[in-house]
Formats: sequence, C-alpha cells, structure tokens
Amino acid sequence: MLGKVVIVGVGLIGGSFALALRQAGAARQIVGMERSPEALNRALALGIVDSITTSAQEALEGADLVLLAAPVAQTGPILAALLPWLEPGTVVTDAGSTKGDVVAVARATLGARIGQFVPAHPIAGRESNGPDAALADLYRGKKVVITPLPENAPGDVGLVAAAWRLCGALVHTLTPGQHDDVFAAVSHLPHLLAYALVDDIARKPHAGLLFQYAASGFRDFTRIAGSSPEMWRDISLANRDALLGELDAYLSQLTALRAKLAAGDGPGLEAVYANAQRARRAWSEAIETAEPPPRQNQES
Amino acid sequence: MLGKVVIVGVGLIGGSFALALRQAGAARQIVGMERSPEALNRALALGIVDSITTSAQEALEGADLVLLAAPVAQTGPILAALLPWLEPGTVVTDAGSTKGDVVAVARATLGARIGQFVPAHPIAGRESNGPDAALADLYRGKKVVITPLPENAPGDVGLVAAAWRLCGALVHTLTPGQHDDVFAAVSHLPHLLAYALVDDIARKPHAGLLFQYAASGFRDFTRIAGSSPEMWRDISLANRDALLGELDAYLSQLTALRAKLAAGDGPGLEAVYANAQRARRAWSEAIETAEPPPRQNQES
Repeated sequence: MLGKVVIVGVGLIGGSFALALRQAGAARQIVGMERSPEALNRALALGIVDSITTSAQEALEGADLVLLAAPVAQTGPILAALLPWLEPGTVVTDAGSTKGDVVAVARATLGARIGQFVPAHPIAGRESNGPDAALADLYRGKKVVITPLPENAPGDVGLVAAAWRLCGALVHTLTPGQHDDVFAAVSHLPHLLAYALVDDIARKPHAGLLFQYAASGFRDFTRIAGSSPEMWRDISLANRDALLGELDAYLSQLTALRAKLAAGDGPGLEAVYANAQRARRAWSEAIETAEPPPRQNQES
Repeated sequence: MLGKVVIVGVGLIGGSFALALRQAGAARQIVGMERSPEALNRALALGIVDSITTSAQEALEGADLVLLAAPVAQTGPILAALLPWLEPGTVVTDAGSTKGDVVAVARATLGARIGQFVPAHPIAGRESNGPDAALADLYRGKKVVITPLPENAPGDVGLVAAAWRLCGALVHTLTPGQHDDVFAAVSHLPHLLAYALVDDIARKPHAGLLFQYAASGFRDFTRIAGSSPEMWRDISLANRDALLGELDAYLSQLTALRAKLAAGDGPGLEAVYANAQRARRAWSEAIETAEPPPRQNQES
C-alpha cells in the first residue's frame, strides 16, 4: 500500500497508472499536477486523481512516489521545479520511451539527489492521448522496463517495481544503455521506416492512385506512422546514436537484398524471407501469445 | 448466371471464388481441377466444387469461365495443358499478384488465342492456405483489378467483371504495367522491407533479447513477414524492375532521413513524420473505412 502518489502529467500514461493504482486500492491519495489546467480539471472530473495542484510544494509534501508522465523534453524543467521541495524519502520515477537522455538530464538537474530517481519505461500505449484516453487496464500483462542507477537504493527500486506490479505489469530490468539499444532495434527503427514509406508514397505524383490500392498489408505495416510526429521526433533525437546504428545495419541489409533482387537470385531472396518468417513465427509463439489480446490502435 | 465454371487450383483463392459463386447461385456447375488429389478430394468433400477432375479435356468441355488460381509459376504449364481443349467460347482469367509476367507467359503459350485470356488480381487473402481456408465472403467489399489486353473482346472482360461482382468484389481496371507499378509500391516493397527487418534482427547476436521486447508496433509492422517465402520470392522476381525502382526510391528517402537524424535536424525529421501521419490519416479515412472490418491474419 502506497501513501501519497503524485502524477506529473495526467494524460494517457500518467492517468492510466493512477486509475490502475486506484482500482487495486493501492494508494491512499493520488495527486495530479501538470501545466494544463484543462487536463487537470478533466482528470479530477473523471476520478483519475483525488486532488489537483499546480504547486510543486503542495504536491510533494509527504509524497512517497512521483511519476513523471509528461513529454520527455520537459523532464529537466519538471525535475528542477520539484527539487526544492523533494523530501529525502520520496522516490521519483518516469515513463519515458528513452532512458539514456532522461538519466543524463536527471543527473544534471538532481545532482547529489540522483539516487532518488529510478528510471522506467512502460511498454504500452494507445494512439489517443489525454485524460480521457486513460484506462485502468492499460498496463495489465504489459512489460515495464526499470533501468536502475548505481545510486538507487534497492528498496526504492523495489517500490517502483511494486507499484507497476500493482498495475498488473510485468517488471523487467535492463541498464539504460541496454534499454536504448533494444528499443532502437524493435521500436524506434520500425517507426522511422514506416514514416519514411508513407512519406515516400505521399510525395509521388501518382500518390492518389497508389493509396487507392493500399490494402491490409500496407495498413498494418504503416499503423505506427499514425503516431505523434512530435513524440517520435523527440525519441529519434534522444536515441540518435543507437538509432543511427540500427538504421545503418538495416541499410546494409537492404543493399544486400537489392543486389540479390537485381541478380534474380531466387534462392538468396527466399533464404532471407524464410528466415524472417521462421523468426517471426517463433517470436509470435513465444512472446506475443504470452501477452493479452491486442487493443486496436495500440502503439509501443 | 454462368454455366460451367472451372477452378484450376482449389485452395484459398480458387476455393473462395467457387464458394462465393455458389452462395450467389451464380453458376450451374463448378468443376475443380488441380495437381493435388488430396486438395481436390477435400474441395469436393467441403462442397466447394460440384465435381473434380485431373483431365483438362473433361474440365474444359463446354466451359464458360476458367479461373487459374494455382501458384503463378505454374501459369505457363497449366495454359499449355488447357490449350488443346480450349473451346472458342471459353474465357480464361487468373488471380495472380503480378500481371506483366503472367501476360507474357500467356502470350507465349496461347499465341493467337491470347484474346481469350483476361488477366485479373483479387486484392484479398489470408495467411492460411488450401481448401479449408476458403471463405465465401473473402472477396466481399474487396477490390479486384482487371488488366484487360488489347486482344480481349469487351464481352469477355465484362464476363470476368460480372463474375467478380457476383462474389461481392469491387471491380477496378488498370493496364498490366500500371498494376505492377502500383503494387510494387504499396504491397511488394512493404513485404520486402518487413522481411528484411525481421531477418536483420534475427541475425544479431542478441536477437533473443531484442525479440523479448518487441511489442505491438513490431507485431503490426512485421505481420506481412509471416507470409509465404516462396510466393513472395516469385512475386519479387516477377515484378523485379518495378520493385527495384521503388526500393531505390525508398533507399534514397532513408538516406536523406539518416542525414537529418545525424545532423540532429528536429524540424526536418518532424516534417517527414508529420507528412506521413497526415497522409496515412487521409488514406485511412478515405480508403480503409470504405472496406469491411479487417479480418485477422489477412494479407494482400
């Protein structure tokens, strides 16, 4: 049972965390704090939080846990605003899609208090945003990656893990660097590739004709290109080095595949396609089926 | 109302065509013909066809319409086997995913009888195959692209169009070259890109770790990499020139995007992502919503 929990940013991610804790009866008090008075009032009206404030001092008084769920670019300014009122026993965590940049900003801002910051990333989402998009079961059966720092006390890491488990999530642990490498490959690169394909088609003179015949294969391949351009610009830049590495590996792969295609090398093409089909089936059987059924318009 | 219809290849595509015509009460007699006795007997047992044969002579006697629904690579041998028994009043059509190569093979095989061949491509499918995968409503609300030849009589093109409309399909017309250019961009390239990504990840030393964190974005992006490697090898080679053109355009696009990323050009990245998001939303609203709800595991 948690005492006072502060949610900074009461949109989809923060709001869903709050709703899940409430549903589990796991927090004595949940306070919402953020820049937008509209979002704050809406979160209160929807019963996502018990109270709202724009004052860091009021929010942090006696807080056990603070979740940063605002856009990642605001992490520094938010931590700077919280720092003067941050009590020694309060644990701060976040929900950002990249970890190396968040840790760097947190170190620069919190200085000697960095041990109170436990970075994390819930692997769940939807295409819609704001308090109205929040769902109590958004995290049920989903992974949350915690990337502890050497300065974190084990009990503080345990508190963050326990809070996510109360939301129904499966807690995993990676280093911030491992996290960013992994998500560059399985999430950030696919987003860039999907955006690139749709933009490429849209700029062709006969784009209208092309889109007319785009069907279910195109729909699924490009679903993630419906995601927020601002958010993915920030993620791309925040994880630039790892993403460039993955992109270069993929460009080499495409160049090799182009040579096979140009040479009419049927067995060579089939070997790549068959290896991909096998690997995807193995992934689907081992990983995907362990997750709850897909929610429409979900992203991650 | 059609008289005798011959389905060459009683799997998903041919079987669904037969079931749809039967459901519409649109054919007097449907005959199944193909290499596999197991598939033939299964199609008969499932009530997909009225009778089965391995004899081209028996199948073609008095036939009004013949649908070729075997793998595209068999088009030449099948047409050669049919030609001696092909009556002057019989119309032959196909369901291949590429059209330029099919037309070339048909011209070479049928010679002066090429006017009896009306090429077509139904834009529908599933990941499963064989007679048991056939569905009477597979084509309902889906597009079928007919690519008529200069030698085709308008009435013969009309017969093929009418048969597909009886299956609930929306009939479109393109030239074979237009067809192959369009599908290189919106279908064949995305398949190649999805296969390439999964193969790329699967070959990395830490592939197991990467796949563990692949989530819904990866799932949708790579769903088409679950498709048949043999079929997509054949499609890639059959439409090689158009596919190479689209792949080169995409490689240029990725190279430009890589430069923006390397330069930390946030506005440049966001412009590409935002244009893609806008275009995909417009596509989704104009095209996707006009189609019936998605079937799981569908491909096209």
